[in-house]
Amino acid sequence: MSRTPSILIVNDDGITAPGIARLIEAVQHLGTITVVAPDSPQSGMGHAVTIGNTLRLEPVDIFHELGVEAYQCSGTPVDCVKIAQDIILKHKPDLCLSGINHGSNASINVIYSGTMSAAMEAAIDGIPAAGFSLMDFKWDADFSVAQQVAREVAERMLASRLPENFLLNVNIPRCPAEEFKGIKVARQAMAQWKENFEKRIDPRGKDYYWMTGKFVNYDVGLDTDLEVLKEGYASVVPVKFDLTDQEVKSWLKSSWKI
Amino acid sequence: MSRTPSILIVNDDGITAPGIARLIEAVQHLGTITVVAPDSPQSGMGHAVTIGNTLRLEPVDIFHELGVEAYQCSGTPVDCVKIAQDIILKHKPDLCLSGINHGSNASINVIYSGTMSAAMEAAIDGIPAAGFSLMDFKWDADFSVAQQVAREVAERMLASRLPENFLLNVNIPRCPAEEFKGIKVARQAMAQWKENFEKRIDPRGKDYYWMTGKFVNYDVGLDTDLEVLKEGYASVVPVKFDLTDQEVKSWLKSSWKI
Repeated sequence: MSRTPSILIVNDDGITAPGIARLIEAVQHLGTITVVAPDSPQSGMGHAVTIGNTLRLEPVDIFHELGVEAYQCSGTPVDCVKIAQDIILKHKPDLCLSGINHGSNASINVIYSGTMSAAMEAAIDGIPAAGFSLMDFKWDADFSVAQQVAREVAERMLASRLPENFLLNVNIPRCPAEEFKGIKVARQAMAQWKENFEKRIDPRGKDYYWMTGKFVNYDVGLDTDLEVLKEGYASVVPVKFDLTDQEVKSWLKSSWKI
Repeated sequence: MSRTPSILIVNDDGITAPGIARLIEAVQHLGTITVVAPDSPQSGMGHAVTIGNTLRLEPVDIFHELGVEAYQCSGTPVDCVKIAQDIILKHKPDLCLSGINHGSNASINVIYSGTMSAAMEAAIDGIPAAGFSLMDFKWDADFSVAQQVAREVAERMLASRLPENFLLNVNIPRCPAEEFKGIKVARQAMAQWKENFEKRIDPRGKDYYWMTGKFVNYDVGLDTDLEVLKEGYASVVPVKFDLTDQEVKSWLKSSWKI
């Protein structure tokens, strides 16, 4: 790539979350960065898009010290990627990076994650993309290992001739730099959330609920993202958005004759 | 199955949408139905879950003529499936049916669709599930072919020994019964939405945007859902939620040595 690469950065924790600032710092040297991120936290928004409501989009000056142009949008993470493409960017970016998320998006979390959905939206549009998530929910988490991983992955993506619709789900363990073992490719572990809704009574005497849940991993494989994270690696899972289940397709053809 | 099957019905157009009533009518004879659906339209919500806000859940009496217990929830379609499991249903249902959606969820729409995400949430929890969508946005659309398809698919699902985590994306063409050709298995067509945001000025002089878009199909295969729908079949695409791209996984191992 001879000209300066153009990099779109997005997240789901909102434009003021520390994780997005850490991501910008980590990859700043690699190209011209444009940030388009939600104006409020959008965790758990999955691949939601805003179709029945209007959207606001405003330039914001919070990354001027880093020399980076930034916009906040009132919509979902996926809205941010769509509106960036249509309204803000003059050309298709060379890379879309999402995060760094405060909290894991390994395993089944890829489905619920706004961070990963934003990256997926870019990949659907043919932009090589990666979502980064640190296994630490704290606002003041230590992002140094995550920054190192984001930098390495972004550098490799820009230097490689990538397969089409390239999309990575990268999760980073919470560990000190000296214990970190490097990045490792993995598959999505088969796990799920088991919900427990907590019922409460509001001041007017009416019931309401809070969703709470327990993460259950029933995958014993050694090649899963959860397993390599446990071993001290950052997990790199390549993600696809063609959801066709080819095995069940064959089963339907032979069993249902359709 | 010797006892009466238990069927959970959900949608994303909201509990008052005609499509959900048509689905109940179509499969009513197959078991004991419980409806848990959003109290307002939730199209395009993808796999969003409500984690930063409270949820309301109320019994509603709108399907009493059909003898069906129903609840409305203030959350997303995925929230409905989760809260149904934890708060309403005593046992895991034998089947989860979602829809009938007003509008297509073929091809890449599976990613954005609340209808399909609700069905996927059930499948993640091990409940055989199917989402049904009619290629007609109109509130007063003719659902007769869609009802026939939903009935046939639900009957087959209950009568078969299904593969694990069974999930179908079923789309029904808008056509008169006499032109309908039957159900056909297909794969997800590679297509995308190209957005065009329409900028307007609000009464206070500030910009805002409406998302509008054009659906672009760049898949020339004859075995796609879009193609079989065009031929007059209902498309049946088996869907998976393990998003690992095995081909790119091999590529990463050999090219990036990770």
